[in-house]
Amino acid sequence: MDKKAIYNLTYGVFMLSTKFDGKANGCITNTCMQVANNPIRIAISVINSNYTCELIKKSGIFAISLLDKECTFETIKWWGFQSGHDVDKMDGLPMPEDIQGVPYLSYHSCAVISGKVVEQHDLGSHTLFIAEVVDAKLLSDNEPLTYADYQNNVKPKPEAPKTDKKIVGWRCKICNYVYEGSELPADFSCPTCGHGPEDFEPIYG
Amino acid sequence: MDKKAIYNLTYGVFMLSTKFDGKANGCITNTCMQVANNPIRIAISVINSNYTCELIKKSGIFAISLLDKECTFETIKWWGFQSGHDVDKMDGLPMPEDIQGVPYLSYHSCAVISGKVVEQHDLGSHTLFIAEVVDAKLLSDNEPLTYADYQNNVKPKPEAPKTDKKIVGWRCKICNYVYEGSELPADFSCPTCGHGPEDFEPIYG
Repeated sequence: MDKKAIYNLTYGVFMLSTKFDGKANGCITNTCMQVANNPIRIAISVINSNYTCELIKKSGIFAISLLDKECTFETIKWWGFQSGHDVDKMDGLPMPEDIQGVPYLSYHSCAVISGKVVEQHDLGSHTLFIAEVVDAKLLSDNEPLTYADYQNNVKPKPEAPKTDKKIVGWRCKICNYVYEGSELPADFSCPTCGHGPEDFEPIYG
Repeated sequence: MDKKAIYNLTYGVFMLSTKFDGKANGCITNTCMQVANNPIRIAISVINSNYTCELIKKSGIFAISLLDKECTFETIKWWGFQSGHDVDKMDGLPMPEDIQGVPYLSYHSCAVISGKVVEQHDLGSHTLFIAEVVDAKLLSDNEPLTYADYQNNVKPKPEAPKTDKKIVGWRCKICNYVYEGSELPADFSCPTCGHGPEDFEPIYG
């Protein structure tokens, strides 16, 4: 078997979130597809060791935010490269909630689909959830990010050489908000996404 | 609910085939994703009224050929716009068989994955099959076709205006094989994919 053949399956990239008993979490996944009509059902597959998976088994509800082509690596790193077992990823973030009360991503996301689990199947490494779509909203006109886009365009490239130019502003790497000024206050938090100075990068004039 | 939001899910485009009791059939689908590791499992969703679905329920095996960016509309029309209930789509086509004896697409396809069904779930309009991957092969270096590519680039555009130029050859719309000469013999069949004169288009000099 040549596993490279299986890598040729096409996927999107999603932020999957849920909330149970006051605890909310989200993670990055690439497996979601519509599997039936009337009613519309989708299937998602989630790694069993994942905290979001654990919470969905208890809550029976989730939101899946469809990342778009403007999504940055920092957003994917935030949701995908740290575990909800260790940190509260939503702490302090001003996230809207869907019809079921599940927080979703309002930036870098072109749509959000709300699912209510109707079946779940343990497949060893992963659990497959089949869910009825209870709501779906377009969030922007941006094109959805594909997993191939992520590999080719979003994953970080080698850093550009340093420059002697002056800093004229700071860009939030999470949501692209721009702060004008050479010095970002140490206690600044982004008015759009709530992230702090460590998630800003300098803009050179 | 805004159904347009759900259209932002990203898919590939596939030719799904199976064989049972001497009867083989294939159809076009866009729903296949890996759902587990160790062993690797994939899930596919197929419309219940589809003849391929009927045959997979009996055979428990299938091949999924991953269409690539060179795929033509004619290939998709052949497998997707006619029903196995009415015609034998594989009759006379020189199709290779996978490890399970299922015919697959050796042109316009960058990979083929062979699945053995381990679970099936009737979801009303569709059946969801969960299958162990028993083999996978790369067929070319071409990039996989996405459903968005199909919508934007493969679906036919308005026809070009007629020309007075001479016909110098004929191109097979199925596999792009070129026959050199102004007249295609009436009993000609493509040496690559087996299709007849009705699937050739003129090349003007």
